[in-house]
Amino acid sequence: MAFQGKKLINNPDDVVTEFIEGLVETYPGLQYLDGFPEVKVVIRADASGATYDKVAVISGGGSGHEPAHAGFVGEGMLTASICGDVFASPSVDSILAGIRAVTGPMGCLLIVMNYTGDRLNFGLAAEQARSEGYKIETVIVGDDCALPPLLGIAGRRGLAGTIFVNKIAGAAAAAGLSLADVAAEAKRASQMVGTMGVALSVCTLPGQVTSDRLGPGKMELGLGIHGEPGAAVADLQSVDVVVSHVLKQILSSETNYVPITRGNRVVLMINGLGATPVMELMIAAGKTVPKLQLEFGLAVERVYTGSFMTSLDMAGFSISIMKADQTLLQRLDAPTKAPHWPVGSAGNRPPAKIPVPLPPSRSTKSEESLSRPLQLSEQGRILEAAIEAAVNAVIVMRDSLNDWDSKVGDGDCGSTMYSGATAILDDMKKYYPLNDAAETVNEIGSSVRRVMGGTSGVLYNIFSKAAYARLKANSDSTVTAKQSFEAAIDAVSKYGGASAGYRTLLDALIPALSVLKERLTAGDDSSTAFVLSSEAALAGAESTKDMQAQAGRSSYVSAAILATVPDPGAMAAAAWYRAAALAVKAKYEKASS
Amino acid sequence: MAFQGKKLINNPDDVVTEFIEGLVETYPGLQYLDGFPEVKVVIRADASGATYDKVAVISGGGSGHEPAHAGFVGEGMLTASICGDVFASPSVDSILAGIRAVTGPMGCLLIVMNYTGDRLNFGLAAEQARSEGYKIETVIVGDDCALPPLLGIAGRRGLAGTIFVNKIAGAAAAAGLSLADVAAEAKRASQMVGTMGVALSVCTLPGQVTSDRLGPGKMELGLGIHGEPGAAVADLQSVDVVVSHVLKQILSSETNYVPITRGNRVVLMINGLGATPVMELMIAAGKTVPKLQLEFGLAVERVYTGSFMTSLDMAGFSISIMKADQTLLQRLDAPTKAPHWPVGSAGNRPPAKIPVPLPPSRSTKSEESLSRPLQLSEQGRILEAAIEAAVNAVIVMRDSLNDWDSKVGDGDCGSTMYSGATAILDDMKKYYPLNDAAETVNEIGSSVRRVMGGTSGVLYNIFSKAAYARLKANSDSTVTAKQSFEAAIDAVSKYGGASAGYRTLLDALIPALSVLKERLTAGDDSSTAFVLSSEAALAGAESTKDMQAQAGRSSYVSAAILATVPDPGAMAAAAWYRAAALAVKAKYEKASS
Repeated sequence: MAFQGKKLINNPDDVVTEFIEGLVETYPGLQYLDGFPEVKVVIRADASGATYDKVAVISGGGSGHEPAHAGFVGEGMLTASICGDVFASPSVDSILAGIRAVTGPMGCLLIVMNYTGDRLNFGLAAEQARSEGYKIETVIVGDDCALPPLLGIAGRRGLAGTIFVNKIAGAAAAAGLSLADVAAEAKRASQMVGTMGVALSVCTLPGQVTSDRLGPGKMELGLGIHGEPGAAVADLQSVDVVVSHVLKQILSSETNYVPITRGNRVVLMINGLGATPVMELMIAAGKTVPKLQLEFGLAVERVYTGSFMTSLDMAGFSISIMKADQTLLQRLDAPTKAPHWPVGSAGNRPPAKIPVPLPPSRSTKSEESLSRPLQLSEQGRILEAAIEAAVNAVIVMRDSLNDWDSKVGDGDCGSTMYSGATAILDDMKKYYPLNDAAETVNEIGSSVRRVMGGTSGVLYNIFSKAAYARLKANSDSTVTAKQSFEAAIDAVSKYGGASAGYRTLLDALIPALSVLKERLTAGDDSSTAFVLSSEAALAGAESTKDMQAQAGRSSYVSAAILATVPDPGAMAAAAWYRAAALAVKAKYEKASS
Repeated sequence: MAFQGKKLINNPDDVVTEFIEGLVETYPGLQYLDGFPEVKVVIRADASGATYDKVAVISGGGSGHEPAHAGFVGEGMLTASICGDVFASPSVDSILAGIRAVTGPMGCLLIVMNYTGDRLNFGLAAEQARSEGYKIETVIVGDDCALPPLLGIAGRRGLAGTIFVNKIAGAAAAAGLSLADVAAEAKRASQMVGTMGVALSVCTLPGQVTSDRLGPGKMELGLGIHGEPGAAVADLQSVDVVVSHVLKQILSSETNYVPITRGNRVVLMINGLGATPVMELMIAAGKTVPKLQLEFGLAVERVYTGSFMTSLDMAGFSISIMKADQTLLQRLDAPTKAPHWPVGSAGNRPPAKIPVPLPPSRSTKSEESLSRPLQLSEQGRILEAAIEAAVNAVIVMRDSLNDWDSKVGDGDCGSTMYSGATAILDDMKKYYPLNDAAETVNEIGSSVRRVMGGTSGVLYNIFSKAAYARLKANSDSTVTAKQSFEAAIDAVSKYGGASAGYRTLLDALIPALSVLKERLTAGDDSSTAFVLSSEAALAGAESTKDMQAQAGRSSYVSAAILATVPDPGAMAAAAWYRAAALAVKAKYEKASS
């Protein structure tokens, strides 16, 4: 079945003029000649023929190859681009208008892609302009390496290699060279470059039906950029295989299309054909460079990867290889304001990769501090009691938590929490540095991270790390404990994305923090405040029954069901918090009795 | 039917690491950490954590959004990018490795897109890094405007607006601001920007089958960048209609997602989703700007059009609008070496279009010279006789030419040449300035251009213009006539693409030129040399029977058929050349008798 190609356009007849309007909206350095729809010419806003003191460099041709050529207009590259209709050569009048608009006393170079219509129309415009007194030279680019030689004069099509010629000529002109010298550099570049493409899909002209010429699993090799069938159709291969084939064809000593031999320096262009994601282009670039180096013995001096010379919405890419020397590299590296000439490819490359940095050494902790102390301090004994009570509270709740969670989630809350709790208990006995509260909290995070999966594992880990960072920043004190609890809650809220009322563990912890701060401000001792706040945690957890879930799987469960169960995460948090508070209170009472 | 999506890749599991390898081959300013496949981190080659004296700015997330974020690493934008697998959040260890690699004493800002996995993993890495002594701030970006508010905490996804936040934070860091100030600017930017997308196709994950969720003629509005279904499916509309809908949604006063009101200054991003040609993006940009100005009363200060935050190979685009002020514009305009930040969008715009330049006034010709002279000079009479003889020779050959052409071409050679010949005859009588040979040749070209279609019309026009330019450059003389004939042949050969032996009109004219030069060198008088050379023209035209066509329709005709007829174009050329020569000879003989 054939369907009209899907495009985000208006009237198919207006695509080129509307493209130009958008182009100049995007780039304030570009203007166009007010001659729509016949004259479609994009020029540099800062170059006017009457006063322009450099050689003007003009390219152009049928549209449908965007950003070519209009996106390459700018200081240091093209002075103007002449746009035809889609895949149709621009008219002689349009080309003449462009020449007249930007050509000063230094003259003008026309860079023409080797298609009959372009050759004839640019040629006639050149002769007409000469007869008007302009100095004009033309260079015709035919860089296609897909077809065997001598298949007629139209054999070597102009493809993406033209972009290199545009850049080199533009840089030569910007350097102040004469028309003859600019033309000579452009011609030399055109003789140094070879291109071949591979396509996964056929392009669709605006307003026309999509061709099904290429079936699933097939690719075309050696295609043109106007929807012409490729030189061969083949089963789709890995990009490694595709690249090898294309490179062999371009560098074939049989056709001898490009004067490149082992030991030469080259530059490379990986050019997307319109619908090819940057990811795939970069993968191709990454595979082409080592092949050129190792299999063909070439030094790859520059790599240009992007969509430069496209064929409407065609998927695939072309590879262009140009022999390079210091002069050419200098022209390619020269600065340009042309918006679509790639940035960041110039210059020599440092090593591609550097070692992953090691974590900072635990300089603040001695080896001893990371094993369980032989002798626990008063503080250490209280901390041990609190942790032990907290994890045991979670352990005994396993089945209840799973049961609640099976109604509102995936039923594993109890099991997940149980894993974390038992890991903490085990690790504490082995190596928690209990006399150092901050480091102990940090190790709780590590235990949790080791065994607890899912969002709850990450959130408890964030909770621990945030508390640890705060504890470590200050000397120990009740104030720091409160602040670190607050920092931990803030971090869970920020990264977890939940707030009070979202039916999460925060609905236990936020009320607890609130009461804790209130009681400490009121003058309660810290263990009393802790216990009172734990009652608020329990009440808060129970209140989740009345809340609509805002996150996680519970958000898909109806309010009627949710009302029958509390949030298991909140219940677990309230339980460990409550148990820890009671244990601390008991220890303090015992110590003071 | 479902087919595996066509991609130019190798193993689908390796796409991210191979992307990174190609990225650093392309951009020598980038490096990656040597920790594949777990650690996938791209960093600036010139920024090392130990010595880096600016705030490091890091972004990242799942891959599949290239060039985001790795393509935005560079001085003035990101210091590092953390790449997850396709559409999967990077691991905490990977994020930590990136933080450690580039963070110096000024600290590090993490810019996180609002997805649960990214929030949790970047959050945990932030807390871990803090506990290692690093100064870390995080900003979470959720710029999606497609979904109504309060649909849960995951409601506002991070989309292409994140690119603006990256640029603004990077520029603030490059300006030497403190971590708190860089974070504050990033947060402010994230609150100013809204984004909504429209898709024509669903993206295909590497190695997976292509979804047929969106049928022909349909589009999705308000999509995510991970293949999530859009907020609505609709019939495909013109881009005008699509843009209007999207703008209304982003700027809705009901959702109030972005604090933009009439009279505000804004910047605009048109972001391709991976498979959208530049042409379509520019068309959208060209339509969006006037709508923002006229319908919403906004001043559009900058337009960024390109593919920045993609969704693999999805076709479509998103529109982002950010409220702008002088500070933000300064950050956006600040220079950066990030390869994929767009070039040429900065600065204020001049008028978009300028008038088409007029052809130069015919200052070298008086009005009188463009009408037939009242009195013909000796030269003028000879020229008149030659032209008259030449066109009459073509006129009488009409049927023969058509007959030959019907065997090897499209059968209209005689008719086309007849049109040109009669036009020349008519125009000559009316206004050819026959006393000026150069201008007369020029007018022959204009007559031909007016009536002759196809390649032959353009080629004869080129022939005339090239001869004219040469004649005008020198004083009249036999030498100049010969040189202008040579220049005309060269131009036809260059722009037409044919040489001797290609079975074209050149096979009459090239032998003629050759004999002409030979006889003149040998000392023959010019009219004798002209006649002798015209015999060579006839012989050359006859010899085309033995030639294989290299161009045009004849190249598809078998050699057996071609051998029965000469090339009609060559025969016509020989005929007019011969007739002209005989006429000139007769005039000279008459004059000297």
